[in-house]
Amino acid sequence: MSTWIFYSARGTCALATHIALHEAGAAFELRPLDFAAKGQQAPEFLSVNPKGRVPALVTERGILTETPALLAFVAQQFPQARLAPLDDTFAFAKLQEFNSYLCSTVHVSHAHKHRGARWADEPEAHEAMRRKVGANMTAHMTLIEAQLSGDHVLGANYSVADAYLYVVSGWLAGDGVDIAQFPRLQAHRQRVGQRPAVLRAERELQG
Amino acid sequence: MSTWIFYSARGTCALATHIALHEAGAAFELRPLDFAAKGQQAPEFLSVNPKGRVPALVTERGILTETPALLAFVAQQFPQARLAPLDDTFAFAKLQEFNSYLCSTVHVSHAHKHRGARWADEPEAHEAMRRKVGANMTAHMTLIEAQLSGDHVLGANYSVADAYLYVVSGWLAGDGVDIAQFPRLQAHRQRVGQRPAVLRAERELQG
Repeated sequence: MSTWIFYSARGTCALATHIALHEAGAAFELRPLDFAAKGQQAPEFLSVNPKGRVPALVTERGILTETPALLAFVAQQFPQARLAPLDDTFAFAKLQEFNSYLCSTVHVSHAHKHRGARWADEPEAHEAMRRKVGANMTAHMTLIEAQLSGDHVLGANYSVADAYLYVVSGWLAGDGVDIAQFPRLQAHRQRVGQRPAVLRAERELQG
Repeated sequence: MSTWIFYSARGTCALATHIALHEAGAAFELRPLDFAAKGQQAPEFLSVNPKGRVPALVTERGILTETPALLAFVAQQFPQARLAPLDDTFAFAKLQEFNSYLCSTVHVSHAHKHRGARWADEPEAHEAMRRKVGANMTAHMTLIEAQLSGDHVLGANYSVADAYLYVVSGWLAGDGVDIAQFPRLQAHRQRVGQRPAVLRAERELQG
């Protein structure tokens, strides 16, 4: 297997896949993009991912994008790392349900803070979107808080969903949401933030 | 196995899972919600899915939501139906990548036509969002058209991604996008629309 290339950028959801790759012990070369310099729109990167987004993982079979797909892929490709309940179809679906909610609802709400230009051209509309981000993120986290019943998203066992939730809960302060109102989520964030794979991924993106 | 209960509603992405359930030969009871009467916000349904959205599938193990999770679940639960490349981790990830893109980018762009209140309170902002839906959907379909190279999303073989794309391409006319500018997508829509499982699901939702 040739070494994979993983494209990421600071402050993005790509951190979740980055963490999962380290949890799995995968060999890969990290290529951080500079979003401030619009590195995701550079022709070299658009030839990798025409969507101009991270994460993007270049493998010997081809390129993979989209966080939920990458998280399940890493878990399936490295079964010995036990990053997903691969032998239990229903439990795997619950994991995917959680990741899909983060991706299509929670991340989307967060994106309306700085990425309003995706959905409207007028600056007034962007302002209107920004005003609603805190309330939406609070509603989403209220729902997640009610679901958390053990140390991890799926209960007892750590999974790729925990890496993803850790990344998303890291956005709350910037979105004007005090995580202290969600004690189980806050404890989750502290617990997952101590994992070696998380510390390593965060350190590598600072560099 | 007790009979599953499947909650759906006309004009929603739940049709994709509905189709997949029929392709798989699953036994289930269909419960259509009336979105015009805000059936998705009724207490009975919120006790099933606190997110107030369809699809929602009640199984003997618990409740599943979120289209990409449900599509992969149906494919894994009924392997003999061959609705996903279950023995090829990379190909399965490509399927999930496609479904995730439909869910978190394409469906979200479409939702800005009628669901702007999710992301802003001001009617002017909703109008601004509506104005951009056609351009966004056109951009997304341009990307998908460039990827389509065979009869189906994954090439030769039908998968749950085809059901999902069929549902989303059915939204284009209402979004002001002429599908004729995407000949491969148009052919895909005609091809998939003739499948017995698709015709059956569409007929059941009309009832």
